[in-house]
Amino acid sequence: MKVNVKITLRKGVLDPQGKAITRALGGLGFEGVASARQGKLIELELEDGLSPEKAKETVAQMCERLLANTVMEDYEIEIVA
Amino acid sequence: MKVNVKITLRKGVLDPQGKAITRALGGLGFEGVASARQGKLIELELEDGLSPEKAKETVAQMCERLLANTVMEDYEIEIVA
Repeated sequence: MKVNVKITLRKGVLDPQGKAITRALGGLGFEGVASARQGKLIELELEDGLSPEKAKETVAQMCERLLANTVMEDYEIEIVA
Repeated sequence: MKVNVKITLRKGVLDPQGKAITRALGGLGFEGVASARQGKLIELELEDGLSPEKAKETVAQMCERLLANTVMEDYEIEIVA
């Protein structure tokens, strides 16, 4: 079972990497980029046989305990297959 | 217009961060994680008034020129809104 986790900075948290991307795109001549924010994407391959509900619950625990810094980051779990 | 770009390591490219995540999850007692791979997620906010096709084309150029290292990374563009 494949599960994707998107980890993004919470609104209001400064994102220097995103700012750097925005500026660099401008420097390359790409106009009209209002903002860019950079997050992480973690692709997990879990053993088969888990129900989607159980998988989601387990991955949420992984996020809380290891993958995300929940003070500054939000996470979103998506069961891919 | 909101556009998400997923940047992931190509198959076959070693992913030490992913390996570290897999091992750390095991250490925390999460069984059954076959593998984890870490990529980047870039959320772009573009000016309105672009057609989705034009936006996709522009963002593909951004990926080729700045956002992704196309020797080692694949990118996937998703128009969100």
